[in-house]
Amino acid sequence: MENPFDDTYFMKRALQEAELAFDKGEIPVGAVVVIDNRIIARGHNLTETLNDVTAHAEMQTITAAANFLGGKYLQNCTLYVTLEPCQMCAGALYWSQISNIVYGARDEQRGCINLKTKLHPKTKMKGGVLETEASTLMKRFFIEKRNLN
Amino acid sequence: MENPFDDTYFMKRALQEAELAFDKGEIPVGAVVVIDNRIIARGHNLTETLNDVTAHAEMQTITAAANFLGGKYLQNCTLYVTLEPCQMCAGALYWSQISNIVYGARDEQRGCINLKTKLHPKTKMKGGVLETEASTLMKRFFIEKRNLN
Repeated sequence: MENPFDDTYFMKRALQEAELAFDKGEIPVGAVVVIDNRIIARGHNLTETLNDVTAHAEMQTITAAANFLGGKYLQNCTLYVTLEPCQMCAGALYWSQISNIVYGARDEQRGCINLKTKLHPKTKMKGGVLETEASTLMKRFFIEKRNLN
Repeated sequence: MENPFDDTYFMKRALQEAELAFDKGEIPVGAVVVIDNRIIARGHNLTETLNDVTAHAEMQTITAAANFLGGKYLQNCTLYVTLEPCQMCAGALYWSQISNIVYGARDEQRGCINLKTKLHPKTKMKGGVLETEASTLMKRFFIEKRNLN
């Protein structure tokens, strides 16, 4: 039998978070943190709502997951995020020692890959899960934003 | 007349924050954000107290300063921090478009300079202000910690 809890399943949950951001006029990025097939934290970008550049989806889920676990390290956890993490978020993930990062769409300009942010040696990262869905949502956001201005 | 509000003056305030961290058993890093010679945000490392790897002094002062200003960009602001920012904090400072970063001690291993974190083109960074005081406090912390374990 197929595992119902695969990367696509959890990335869909992250995309639902991204849609919540979209509905608030935020750049639509969402994230969930998973341990043992269980979602322990959810978050979406709130930089406009909170007037705070640090309020990326990843930052909030890192904080929420650590809160849930009662410890600051996210060993055995996987972060699903709809967009490749930026330097700040990858830097936070470095400190968290998270086991896995799975992202949807690439961010060539401001993502951690091209900017060569150092990840923790214990962390594996892969991308491209529901990439089209994630990047379509981003494109839709920027088109709507342009039309409103 | 000498300007009483020079880098040393504000770095001393950041060091006072670092001492508050020290007293709580936190790695002693402190920060203040200044605009027009006025401190608008203070913070110190709280990663242990809050069980949260994102609770660095800089992250808290960025959030607090934006809150004070009512906007997320820290143009015309200077961050004084006792230790060279890490990738996460430098990444957050990138998003904030802060005008100046002044740090005390270098962090060769985990600081943003050797790890080549990208700063915003509008941001200038300089270091070495009260460097000895900042690094002495760090050394004292790690010696005491070793002796307690």
